[in-house]
Amino acid sequence: MEEPTGRLTPKKVAVVGGGLVGALNACYFAKRGFDVEVFETREDIRQAKVVKGRSINLALSHRGRQALKHVGMEDKIVSQGIPMHARMIHSPSGKQSPIPYGKKGQFILSVDRANLNKELLTEAETYPNMKMNFDHKLKDWSPETGLMTFTRLDGSHDQIQADLIVGCDGAFSAIRKQFLRRSRFNYSQTYIPHGYMELTMPPVNGEFAMKPNYLHIWPRNTFMMIALPNLDKTFTCTLFMPFDEFEKITTGDEVMEFFQEYFADTIPLIGVDALKRDYFRLPGLAMVSIKCSPYHIGDKCVLMGDAAHAVVPFYGQGMNAGFEDCIVFDEIMEQLNEDFSAVLPEYSRVRVPDDHAIADLAMYNYIEMRAHVNSKWFLFRKHLDNFLHFLLPNTIVPLYTMVTFTRTRYHKAVDRWQWQDKVINRGLLFGATGAVLGGSYLLIKNPPDINKLIIPTEKMWARLMSLWTS
Amino acid sequence: MEEPTGRLTPKKVAVVGGGLVGALNACYFAKRGFDVEVFETREDIRQAKVVKGRSINLALSHRGRQALKHVGMEDKIVSQGIPMHARMIHSPSGKQSPIPYGKKGQFILSVDRANLNKELLTEAETYPNMKMNFDHKLKDWSPETGLMTFTRLDGSHDQIQADLIVGCDGAFSAIRKQFLRRSRFNYSQTYIPHGYMELTMPPVNGEFAMKPNYLHIWPRNTFMMIALPNLDKTFTCTLFMPFDEFEKITTGDEVMEFFQEYFADTIPLIGVDALKRDYFRLPGLAMVSIKCSPYHIGDKCVLMGDAAHAVVPFYGQGMNAGFEDCIVFDEIMEQLNEDFSAVLPEYSRVRVPDDHAIADLAMYNYIEMRAHVNSKWFLFRKHLDNFLHFLLPNTIVPLYTMVTFTRTRYHKAVDRWQWQDKVINRGLLFGATGAVLGGSYLLIKNPPDINKLIIPTEKMWARLMSLWTS
Repeated sequence: MEEPTGRLTPKKVAVVGGGLVGALNACYFAKRGFDVEVFETREDIRQAKVVKGRSINLALSHRGRQALKHVGMEDKIVSQGIPMHARMIHSPSGKQSPIPYGKKGQFILSVDRANLNKELLTEAETYPNMKMNFDHKLKDWSPETGLMTFTRLDGSHDQIQADLIVGCDGAFSAIRKQFLRRSRFNYSQTYIPHGYMELTMPPVNGEFAMKPNYLHIWPRNTFMMIALPNLDKTFTCTLFMPFDEFEKITTGDEVMEFFQEYFADTIPLIGVDALKRDYFRLPGLAMVSIKCSPYHIGDKCVLMGDAAHAVVPFYGQGMNAGFEDCIVFDEIMEQLNEDFSAVLPEYSRVRVPDDHAIADLAMYNYIEMRAHVNSKWFLFRKHLDNFLHFLLPNTIVPLYTMVTFTRTRYHKAVDRWQWQDKVINRGLLFGATGAVLGGSYLLIKNPPDINKLIIPTEKMWARLMSLWTS
Repeated sequence: MEEPTGRLTPKKVAVVGGGLVGALNACYFAKRGFDVEVFETREDIRQAKVVKGRSINLALSHRGRQALKHVGMEDKIVSQGIPMHARMIHSPSGKQSPIPYGKKGQFILSVDRANLNKELLTEAETYPNMKMNFDHKLKDWSPETGLMTFTRLDGSHDQIQADLIVGCDGAFSAIRKQFLRRSRFNYSQTYIPHGYMELTMPPVNGEFAMKPNYLHIWPRNTFMMIALPNLDKTFTCTLFMPFDEFEKITTGDEVMEFFQEYFADTIPLIGVDALKRDYFRLPGLAMVSIKCSPYHIGDKCVLMGDAAHAVVPFYGQGMNAGFEDCIVFDEIMEQLNEDFSAVLPEYSRVRVPDDHAIADLAMYNYIEMRAHVNSKWFLFRKHLDNFLHFLLPNTIVPLYTMVTFTRTRYHKAVDRWQWQDKVINRGLLFGATGAVLGGSYLLIKNPPDINKLIIPTEKMWARLMSLWTS
């Protein structure tokens, strides 16, 4: 940790939620010298026997790393993660093909959610101006006075008053409920028709059962499975599928039939008994996309992380966006001398369009990952984009690169992507027109052997035609 | 009233909310012979001295009338309304031009909200199988058991158990809160940047100050005013304007300056003193658009009216859509023998797309009414659409007509409108192309007098060009 900056009368900041974004945010506020208290509903995760809930591994990328770096934690967390340099696409026949995430040397990291949370809490506790309160469930609070009431498992109450309340209490935020009661608060929650289910692929002879430095994907159009490596040499496989498909499978034999048809290569690796058992351990779990605005009430309360913008997990940006919130808020505090009455509206103004953009992108990737990855056109465009990025590194930057390996504002990345896409498609169109004209000339000059012709498929024509309208 | 159908053990239906949709729905359920209780938070509006809240007049059209007709109330309510056959557009210079709503004889009705509500409550009370409970504020309820707890002003509690709970408790529904706590409930609330303010235009010498059988509109692009006639010969003027514009005006003189510039013709009619005073009586009030799905939980609870789909007021369909909910639900009860476990999911399936469509249309009209009405192209298209409807009454039906004067499902109306629009635009394009070719031929044959040429404006060209891309 670093020394907090001196201050005569430190303001009190209450961080509600001791999850990933809450714990990191606590470090940010403590580093600035505020008098910080964290309030978490559950017991201390470091003493908990069973950690319930959310998926166990996450993809850490540039934005998240930059946020950790600011509080001196990047190296430690990176050393505990497993680099993934590429997606590894598994075809139904079992063939594996890698698609790199970016340039050589660029990678994302598979990190363990529980471990990261523990590390962040322990780091936060090294600040002397920090107090952790577990078993504190928010009962009520006032946006006018900053007074908060918490209840504890033994039935007792705890009251505190804060100058700033930071709601980092996740997608089902208790803090946000108070926002919903106020006029002119925009809010949406959208559940997707897919659920998810986690299965474990154990090590084989003490080693990873598949190549570890990849994010494995089995795209199957309406559904898909992915697998991320863990430090204990297991993989966590996550099956994404419409709820009604999950419900169609009711017996162990039906599980096997389903896996045999779509994920045959994983059966020997997960194991028949484990599959038949684990598929029925939990039902498919729901995924929600949440957007709202503004993120603040007056000069006393602000929402950050999933409480402000839960996203579906298909761009691997949920945690990274939440961590970046901490940097953005910190930068604005710096600019505006920690005057909350100016900082809070500015934070809403700056951050809302970016969070909405990543929520939309994650929704878009929800289709791209499971369906487009199977299309030749998609792979062609991925390779073309990477090639153009190599030729013109400052002009053409693939969207995935902007989102994952830079801190380009999310909404600017989307704007630029749409512009690039237009330019590239126009280029392809001119190229194709030129090729047709040149080809025709050559054909007339040298009539071809009909048996050697490649006839364009209907799909290829449709694609080409769609260039005209895009 | 009509006789309820006989039944051995009538099921208990609790209608939460005694506003327009709640009171009408109570009649529908009572007519079917259910044991109905209505629970309303406020006191009985028929005994209240001051009726607070919502705007005082509403536009009743076909869907609402059909719903009233089913319980024998259409004629009575229509006789208490004022027909409006056309919009009356007021230009900044004070010029007035009517745009009819439909064919000759078609009109919408300006009705008084409070009076309509009173009539509906009184009608509901004529059913013997009906009990009204005022001063009953919903405290808690269970979607599993149908058990509900209400609190009263004197602090006492009331508990009842219902077989079906019908949430008609408006845009800020207490019933809906329970839906929000459940997984896979989609919800959005969107506030528009405009607020509204009501001003009264008194009678002049005991008569309406303007022509009464019109909905008067002062479209001013970023803002607008409308006026609806009341039975007491006043007009209620509603000013719609962005909140920050409302806030810019802080003195009586600034009000006058603003009205002088934009609504000069209304100043003598509203009165200088009234304007300076009433503008500051209340701040601009917020408008929200609410969408959600599904509308039911299990076989015990369903949302209807604004609780399910609050819309912005720019299509005049809020009440009409809510009233139509009652017919649609009734039709499904008829089809499925009042088996709530089948009726409720079917109602969600059928009604959600229509309510979402009208919410979107109202949002669309929010721009059309204040801005497009000023455009020559818009007026040209309105007149062309009406003309084509006259020529081909079954092929081309203007969107406004489908929404306002038929019971065409809202989402089907939108689909058809998009199809028609394409067809008409294509027709205009071919027509324009033909005219250019024909014109060129004539020009060559008979060179014109240059002084008599009409030069198309830039805007006209842009419009014509846009036909190519639409």
